[in-house]
Amino acid sequence: MANASKSFRIGLDIGGTGIKAGIVNQENQIIGRALHPTDSRRLWQQVVQEIALTVQDALKDAGLTEQDCISLGVGCPGTIDAKTGTVVYSNNLRWKNVPLVQELRHSFSLPIHVSNDANCAALGEVCAGAAKGCQYAVMFTLGTGVGSGIILDGKIFEGGGPGGAEFGHTLLVENGELCTCGRHGCLESYASATALIRDAKRAAEKAPDSLLATLCGGDLSRMDGRIPFQAARRGDSAGKQVVNAYIAHLAAGIVNAVNIFRPEVVLLSGGISKEGAFLTDPLNEQVKNEVFGGPSSFLPKIRTAELGNDAGMIGAAHLK
Amino acid sequence: MANASKSFRIGLDIGGTGIKAGIVNQENQIIGRALHPTDSRRLWQQVVQEIALTVQDALKDAGLTEQDCISLGVGCPGTIDAKTGTVVYSNNLRWKNVPLVQELRHSFSLPIHVSNDANCAALGEVCAGAAKGCQYAVMFTLGTGVGSGIILDGKIFEGGGPGGAEFGHTLLVENGELCTCGRHGCLESYASATALIRDAKRAAEKAPDSLLATLCGGDLSRMDGRIPFQAARRGDSAGKQVVNAYIAHLAAGIVNAVNIFRPEVVLLSGGISKEGAFLTDPLNEQVKNEVFGGPSSFLPKIRTAELGNDAGMIGAAHLK
Repeated sequence: MANASKSFRIGLDIGGTGIKAGIVNQENQIIGRALHPTDSRRLWQQVVQEIALTVQDALKDAGLTEQDCISLGVGCPGTIDAKTGTVVYSNNLRWKNVPLVQELRHSFSLPIHVSNDANCAALGEVCAGAAKGCQYAVMFTLGTGVGSGIILDGKIFEGGGPGGAEFGHTLLVENGELCTCGRHGCLESYASATALIRDAKRAAEKAPDSLLATLCGGDLSRMDGRIPFQAARRGDSAGKQVVNAYIAHLAAGIVNAVNIFRPEVVLLSGGISKEGAFLTDPLNEQVKNEVFGGPSSFLPKIRTAELGNDAGMIGAAHLK
Repeated sequence: MANASKSFRIGLDIGGTGIKAGIVNQENQIIGRALHPTDSRRLWQQVVQEIALTVQDALKDAGLTEQDCISLGVGCPGTIDAKTGTVVYSNNLRWKNVPLVQELRHSFSLPIHVSNDANCAALGEVCAGAAKGCQYAVMFTLGTGVGSGIILDGKIFEGGGPGGAEFGHTLLVENGELCTCGRHGCLESYASATALIRDAKRAAEKAPDSLLATLCGGDLSRMDGRIPFQAARRGDSAGKQVVNAYIAHLAAGIVNAVNIFRPEVVLLSGGISKEGAFLTDPLNEQVKNEVFGGPSSFLPKIRTAELGNDAGMIGAAHLK
């Protein structure tokens, strides 16, 4: 349904597989959507063309045109230079120094902004989700890796230069597990779903009769991020050990973030966050006791995110 | 010399021992000074009275009055609530919830601000020292502890609540050395002068014939932060091991800060920073190779601070 006043925003969430576009209204509802394949084997110019087509389809779905919209924002995986609108490096998209905003200007006359996808998801939760109204929030996305988005003074913190806000790549364990970034012992190498699965497999190998192992049906390649939690909830000692160690590492990472940022809220998203209070209850307890200044200091609420896969689009729509 | 226009600022640096006040001109020179004892065994109201007297003496020294000044800023050790002007907790001053700004308003009608002393030192270096003109800088003070000051967008980053910007209390070594904050393995417990001395003593005990040990004249209680560097410079293997381990830990802490903030400059101050290029050369090299995105990413310059003990006063004078 078209609207006479400009009151809609366009948000995009670009992944290695799909380009998602959403038209967001003033109540932060997504009133039109489209999904196109990314197919990153193509030339980047073709992918950008596809992004423009996805936006057009989302506008059609909403019954609107570009003229009804205030701005267009894009969340991209990888290292982004938000100031110049450039994707400096994205492993998922196979892009290096792609002038995304400049290229999109050929298709749209709206103000266009780009930021890292984890940043956009955090902004989305601050605008419309589990951190609504917060000025200071940190969000960790616990998936294949550990993404982080940092909101300071109500805005995305981009860093002094590209490649900041990478909390997943801060050290937790000296000479620890190898991280995807090449360093050893990063938070990502202990708090990602990938790390949890790795540690659960190791524990199951050592305890083949445990529930942790048997829930895989005798095939450890079927281990996933849910099984350790299932086993732990049912009292399995191997499962509990794996989950407790995972939570302790995540708590240490959150404590680091609290000692630096003192956010009002720490949000968890991604697959592992679906464990809900089973995850956030012990985290709140451990973080409270370990932060600088202890339980009487300024403490964040540790919560799971609310907007799921829409957070990135909603946040991107609010980029400024 | 008095000046008709209001163009001077008052900066204070409060320590456990002394209250330092400086009158700062537009060229960031300190044109009047005073130093009074803190004597923190007194009632906090008396200490605040002493602060006011120190300011009056510094104004006299400059030949000025309060009316010649724009603002008054105070740098305090401990956890500060800059929004309310309260010293939440300061171990050095033995203060808890002291409404410092409110109390100083009885003596001065200027705008009054307070921040953590490490924050003020960082702001001082950005205004007039080794990070002059930078918008994004992180400063580590390597002394008894590890203080940190974070400058984002040209301003002190105070955190969403009191107790932020405590980079010294982020984890570096899981289950590592006990830190003064009660946690194990914080950056402070590896990169402070105290930590260096601890590790140097241990190494000297194991190698009593080393230069590291003999430079203490047979009495390890005489170990200080300079001796390991002296021994290392002269090729002593025990000294080199201690210094290399120290630098590796500090580099890891700096990498964490870079992956989060991507500052233009990382500054080192405090006693250990006097080692100069012997410290900063290997740090620049190690940080370059370990940061997220590697040597081709946005890299900070790692430098020693320039303003020494005046940094805190100059920064405090610029609090807003």
